[in-house]
Amino acid sequence: MEAYGRHLILEMWDCKRDVLNDANKIIELISNSANEAGATVIKQFYHEFIPSGITGVAILAESHIAIHTWPVEGYVAVDVFTCGRNCDPQLAVNLLISGFEPKDHTTLEIKRGSPLIKGTLLSEAFSTA
Amino acid sequence: MEAYGRHLILEMWDCKRDVLNDANKIIELISNSANEAGATVIKQFYHEFIPSGITGVAILAESHIAIHTWPVEGYVAVDVFTCGRNCDPQLAVNLLISGFEPKDHTTLEIKRGSPLIKGTLLSEAFSTA
Repeated sequence: MEAYGRHLILEMWDCKRDVLNDANKIIELISNSANEAGATVIKQFYHEFIPSGITGVAILAESHIAIHTWPVEGYVAVDVFTCGRNCDPQLAVNLLISGFEPKDHTTLEIKRGSPLIKGTLLSEAFSTA
Repeated sequence: MEAYGRHLILEMWDCKRDVLNDANKIIELISNSANEAGATVIKQFYHEFIPSGITGVAILAESHIAIHTWPVEGYVAVDVFTCGRNCDPQLAVNLLISGFEPKDHTTLEIKRGSPLIKGTLLSEAFSTA
């Protein structure tokens, strides 16, 4: 059995601060990154926290994108989860890295639904970049 | 620096089929699991796919919960991501396992924003159950 989807977990540190509290920019980045990956946005939502921080989420025809920002610390947590063979979530991640301009970032990929996750071959279900 | 949040990735196989296409039940499970974890739901959304499958997402005051169901295959992909010290995402996961009744499941925990993810100590940023 193949995996049901590719879930990329993107961690970004020391991002460009002015983007992290700009809801319109984050909505635009989510939308553009979905397009870049070949995914279709079905619904998109966000919430602005007080005093700072934004959560943006898109339900995709192919799963979801979620972004949480910590503007004071400069940290951003991103999930790009796409199912099917017609999307490449790495392209969404590349666009988001360009948009947030982190000084440091890590991407983990989890093959969701893969039988590798069930057993002892856990390391094979992950890859890092 | 501590992690910003705990992200539990729950994989469930051979779930109870009638739940997987029941949007109301999934919304209720997301809401109850957030409460169980000590989290606050800010916004909640879902989408019903044709011919089957549901995506449900909740933006939490403490990050997010996302659920995707594959009713034909019996597979469900769940993410429970909570930040702060007052939530326990494992309690949400426990409730979701009770609700979906999988014959097989795996939980991975990723410490989001942890410096362990940056370096070579990747295995320490993960744990499985």
